[in-house]
Amino acid sequence: MPNGNTVQGTVADGYESVREQFAAVITGEEPDHVAQLAVQVDGERVVDLWTGPGTSGDTLIGVFSATKGAAHLVVALLVQEGVLDLDERVAHYWPDFAVQGKQDITLRDLLAHRAGVIGADGGFTLDELADDRLVAERLAPQRPYWRPGAAFGYHALVIGALTGEVVRRATGRTLQELYEERVRAPYALDLHLGLPEEHEPRFVTTLPMLPTAEQFAEMRAAATGSHSLPGIALNRNRPDSEELQHLPNHRAVRAKGPASVGGIGSARGLAGLYAAAISRVDGRAPLLKHDTAAEFAQIHSIGYDVVLRRHSAFGLGFVALADTYPALGAGAFGHSGAAGALGFADPGTGLAYGYTRRRFAYPAGTAPENAALIRAVHAAARAAR
Amino acid sequence: MPNGNTVQGTVADGYESVREQFAAVITGEEPDHVAQLAVQVDGERVVDLWTGPGTSGDTLIGVFSATKGAAHLVVALLVQEGVLDLDERVAHYWPDFAVQGKQDITLRDLLAHRAGVIGADGGFTLDELADDRLVAERLAPQRPYWRPGAAFGYHALVIGALTGEVVRRATGRTLQELYEERVRAPYALDLHLGLPEEHEPRFVTTLPMLPTAEQFAEMRAAATGSHSLPGIALNRNRPDSEELQHLPNHRAVRAKGPASVGGIGSARGLAGLYAAAISRVDGRAPLLKHDTAAEFAQIHSIGYDVVLRRHSAFGLGFVALADTYPALGAGAFGHSGAAGALGFADPGTGLAYGYTRRRFAYPAGTAPENAALIRAVHAAARAAR
Amino acid sequence: MPNGNTVQGTVADGYESVREQFAAVITGEEPDHVAQLAVQVDGERVVDLWTGPGTSGDTLIGVFSATKGAAHLVVALLVQEGVLDLDERVAHYWPDFAVQGKQDITLRDLLAHRAGVIGADGGFTLDELADDRLVAERLAPQRPYWRPGAAFGYHALVIGALTGEVVRRATGRTLQELYEERVRAPYALDLHLGLPEEHEPRFVTTLPMLPTAEQFAEMRAAATGSHSLPGIALNRNRPDSEELQHLPNHRAVRAKGPASVGGIGSARGLAGLYAAAISRVDGRAPLLKHDTAAEFAQIHSIGYDVVLRRHSAFGLGFVALADTYPALGAGAFGHSGAAGALGFADPGTGLAYGYTRRRFAYPAGTAPENAALIRAVHAAARAAR
Repeated sequence: MPNGNTVQGTVADGYESVREQFAAVITGEEPDHVAQLAVQVDGERVVDLWTGPGTSGDTLIGVFSATKGAAHLVVALLVQEGVLDLDERVAHYWPDFAVQGKQDITLRDLLAHRAGVIGADGGFTLDELADDRLVAERLAPQRPYWRPGAAFGYHALVIGALTGEVVRRATGRTLQELYEERVRAPYALDLHLGLPEEHEPRFVTTLPMLPTAEQFAEMRAAATGSHSLPGIALNRNRPDSEELQHLPNHRAVRAKGPASVGGIGSARGLAGLYAAAISRVDGRAPLLKHDTAAEFAQIHSIGYDVVLRRHSAFGLGFVALADTYPALGAGAFGHSGAAGALGFADPGTGLAYGYTRRRFAYPAGTAPENAALIRAVHAAARAAR
Repeated sequence: MPNGNTVQGTVADGYESVREQFAAVITGEEPDHVAQLAVQVDGERVVDLWTGPGTSGDTLIGVFSATKGAAHLVVALLVQEGVLDLDERVAHYWPDFAVQGKQDITLRDLLAHRAGVIGADGGFTLDELADDRLVAERLAPQRPYWRPGAAFGYHALVIGALTGEVVRRATGRTLQELYEERVRAPYALDLHLGLPEEHEPRFVTTLPMLPTAEQFAEMRAAATGSHSLPGIALNRNRPDSEELQHLPNHRAVRAKGPASVGGIGSARGLAGLYAAAISRVDGRAPLLKHDTAAEFAQIHSIGYDVVLRRHSAFGLGFVALADTYPALGAGAFGHSGAAGALGFADPGTGLAYGYTRRRFAYPAGTAPENAALIRAVHAAARAAR
Repeated sequence: MPNGNTVQGTVADGYESVREQFAAVITGEEPDHVAQLAVQVDGERVVDLWTGPGTSGDTLIGVFSATKGAAHLVVALLVQEGVLDLDERVAHYWPDFAVQGKQDITLRDLLAHRAGVIGADGGFTLDELADDRLVAERLAPQRPYWRPGAAFGYHALVIGALTGEVVRRATGRTLQELYEERVRAPYALDLHLGLPEEHEPRFVTTLPMLPTAEQFAEMRAAATGSHSLPGIALNRNRPDSEELQHLPNHRAVRAKGPASVGGIGSARGLAGLYAAAISRVDGRAPLLKHDTAAEFAQIHSIGYDVVLRRHSAFGLGFVALADTYPALGAGAFGHSGAAGALGFADPGTGLAYGYTRRRFAYPAGTAPENAALIRAVHAAARAAR
C-alpha cells in the first residue's frame, strides 16, 4: 500500500488508540484519500495525524461549513463584549432587513437558523457567493421561505453573510477582518477566512464524492427539486449554479473566504480554533467565558429541520453536537462541513477536535467516520485524566 | 381488459409520459376503478385523462378534504383584499369563540391547524356535519383538545366550519356563497361546494377501501380509540357516527357542501381551481397575487401532527406540499382528500394539478399513486419549457 | 410452578379477560417476579391482582416516577383553588429562581418540562436527591441546559423538587405534607411520599434489570455520556452517583419521599389515587373538577424530547398518555415509573389504573406489558357499560 493510506503524524502517550482508529477508518478509502485529525486537550495538542500522498499536517483543505465555527466565534466574542445583543432585532443593526415580515427577527433567531432567509429568489452567481456583502444585499429584501418562528432550517450557504452583515453594521468591520485580527493571527491558526496568496501552494482542491451504485440510488430517491427548500438553500434554484462541492476550488472563493462555506484550513487549524475558544493556550486566557460558551452551545432549535429534511440541533451559530454524538457533553459546540470536516469544543472535558478530508464523504455533511473517531478520542481523554 | 382499466382522454404534445404513468398506476386496480387526472400549465390544460366504466372527464366525485383548497382560496382572496386580517384574533370576528382559553387564537393560528378545536365533546350528527354553521355553533364553546400554541394537528372535519364562520361574521355571506360567486361560476369550475340538483346525474358515489389482509392488519395495529385525538377529529367520539367515507354519498352533504370535506368535483375542477389561483386563464388575471400565494404557501406548522400521529406540514389552510413531494417548489400549495384526491398549484413552474379517485386508496389520505404522477407531470413540464 | 408466577387476587364479573392478560404477561418472567395490577371504574375496584412469592396486594414497591402523579395531583388541587396560577412566573413564588435566563419561566412551562433545569452542574449527592428542598437550592442558581422555550425534555429526577418548591413558597407547607393531608390520608391510599417506619415491613426492594445479551447490546449502542442531557438528568454527571434503580432501596429516600421518584406504594394505591382524582369514591366528590383535569391532561409539550432522545408527550406534570396508548381518551393523564409502574386516569371512561413491578423491565420506563394490560382493561370496561 504505497499509495498513501498510511497514517502519518504523532499522538501523545495514551492516545495510541486514536491512531489505531484513524488507521481503521482510512482503510478501504481510495488511494488518493487525504484526511487530517488533530485534537487538543486543555489546550495541549495530543493528536496530530494525517494520511494521503503528498499530504502533511500543513496541507490546506476546503472545510466548507466548518467555516461557520470560525465566523460565529467572532460573533460570540462581540456578544460577550456587549457590542452585539442576542435579543436585539436584526433590523436594529441592519434597517434594510425590516421588510417582508422579517422586522421582528432577532439576532438570536438568526443564529438559531430560524429566520427562513435561506436563499434568494433566482439564486446567486458565483461572484455573489464569494462575497458575503453581495449575498447580504440580495437577502435584505427577500421574503422568508417559511413563517419566521414556525420552523427552523439550516441556512447552509448564507448564515455567515447574514450574521456577517450584522457584524459589519455594528462594528464597521467585516467578520473576516475581525476573525483575522482577533482569532486567527494571535494564535497563528491555519484556518483562513480569505486565504492569502502565499498560502495557495499548500491548498489542495476538493474532490467529488464517489458514491457506490447503491449510494447513488439512495441519493436519487432522496432528490429534491431545484425550487424546494433544500434546492434554494443550496443555490440550485439558479440554473447555471456551480455545484457546492466545487466552491473552494475557485480562487475567488478562497480569496474572500465567505463566512458560511469559504474557509480553508487544516485539522490543526480547526482544533486550534476550538482550543482557543475554551482553553488557556500559550498563556492566553480562553477567548470565551464559561457563560458565553454555554449560551452559544445551548440548544436553540431542535427537531425537524425543514431544509435538511431530517432531525437536527443548533445552538447559536454552532451545531449542538451532543444530540448527534451523545458521548459528548451537553455543552459541546462546533460545526461540520459538507465534505466531511468537523471541528468542535467539549468544554466539560477540555477537548478541541479538528478533522478534514479532501474528498466528499457519503453522505455529504459530517463524515460518518467522525463518530468512531470521537468515541476513540473521548475514551482516551477520559482515561488520561 | 374491457372493464375500464384503460386510459381515456388526451394529453398535449410532450405529456405522453404522463399518460403512460397514468396507465401504469391504474394497472392492477379493481375492474370498477374510477380515476381522473387533469393538469394545466400557465393556465393551459395539458393533461386530461380518466379511467373507469361509464366515466368521463365530467364525472363528479367526492373530493373530501381537497374541498379545503377551494374554501381557503376564498379566505386568501379576503385576506388579499383586506377584509380579513391573518393576525387578528378569531374572537374579534366571532365573539362566542373567546372562551375556554381560545381568546387569543388568531386567524393565522386557525388556518395553520394550531387552535386545537378539532371536534366537539359528544361528536356531531350527520345533519350537523352537513352544515358548517351548526358545526361552528358547537365549536364556539368547546375547550381546545390541546394547549393552543403547544402543538398542531389536522382539523380534518371542522377547519372549514371554523374559517367559514369567520368569513360569515366578517362578510355576512357564507364561504360557499362567496366561492360560487367569486371562483366557481366565473371559471365554470366543476368543483362544487353545494352541488346543484341538476348536476346529480353526473355524481358517482364513493366506494370503500378494499384493504389486503396485510393492510387490514396494519390498520388494526394503528387503531386509535374513539376518544383519542384522531377519534375526535374523525367524529368517532359519537357512537352512531356515520363513517367518513360515506359522507359525500348523502345528498344532504352534497347539497350543502361543507367546506372541510363536502366538495364534489372532477380532476378538471381541481386543476382549474389552482390554475385560476396562480395563472392567467381565459384573459382573467390570477386570483392571487404573488405575495398572497407565497404567504398562504409558507410553512406555518411542521413536525409531529398530534391528530395524524405522524409528520405533516401546513401553510395557511393549505398543505405545504413540497415537504411531501420534494420535486415541487417550496411555494407549492394544495390539499389532498381522504379517498385519494389531490389538487395543488406550484407557482414556480405554473403547474396546476387535479386528481380524483372514486374508491378509497390505501392508506387513506393522499393516494400513493400521486407521487409517481407528480414526478411524471413535473418532468414533462420542465422538458416542455 | 410453585415459584410465584401464578395470578392471585380477584376481578369483578366481566373482567376475567384482564386476569387472563395479567397471567399472560407474567409468563416467562423470572421465578421471583413481583407485579400488581389494580383498576377502578367510576371509583369501584374491578381488578385487584398480583403475583410473586410472599407478595400480596399490600406489598409496597418503589414506583419511581409514578410518584410524580401523586405530586402533581396536589399541584392541580392548588391551581383549582386559586392558590397557584399556572401562568404566573416561577420567580414570583420563588425569587431565587430568577437568574441565568430563568426569570420568565412560568409554572405552566415548568410543569410542561420546558424549563431546561434538568439537573445541576456537578450533580447531586444521595442526601440531596432524598430531599427536595436541597435539590431546589441547587437548582435555583442553575443555568438551564437548553434555551427555555426552544425545546422540552423530561426533568426526570427534579421536576418534583421544582414544583414542590413553588408549593412550599406559596403555602408554607411541603408538597409531601399537603399530599398526606389532602389526598393520601382521607382515602387511606397505599401510596406514600415519605413512608412511615411502621409500613417498612411491607416494602420490598427494587431489583435490577436483567437484560438479554441482545438488549444489553442495544443499551450499549444507545449509551450517552455522563455530561450529555440524559446524563445530567439522571445525575450521572456526578462520578460517585448512586444508580437510579437503587434509589428507593435507601431508607433515607423512602423516609422523605422526594416528589419526583421517591414514592412507595402498591397498584391499589396508584389506582386509588387516580380514582380519587376523577371519580366519586366512598361518598367523596372527585378531587378534580372536570375543567382542572382537562387542563392538566391537555398536551403542552409534544415531539422530540431532548432528554429522552425520542418522541414524548406531556400535559402539566402528567404524561399525556393517549399519544402512547391510543386506546385511551385524549383526556387521559398519568405517569409511569422507571421500573415499569404506571398509574393513570381516563376521565372519558372513568378508568383508574395502577400497575407496579419490583424488577426493572426492559426497556426502563413504562413496562411494555402495560400496553396489553391497558387494551384488556379498556375492552372489558367498554363491554361492561
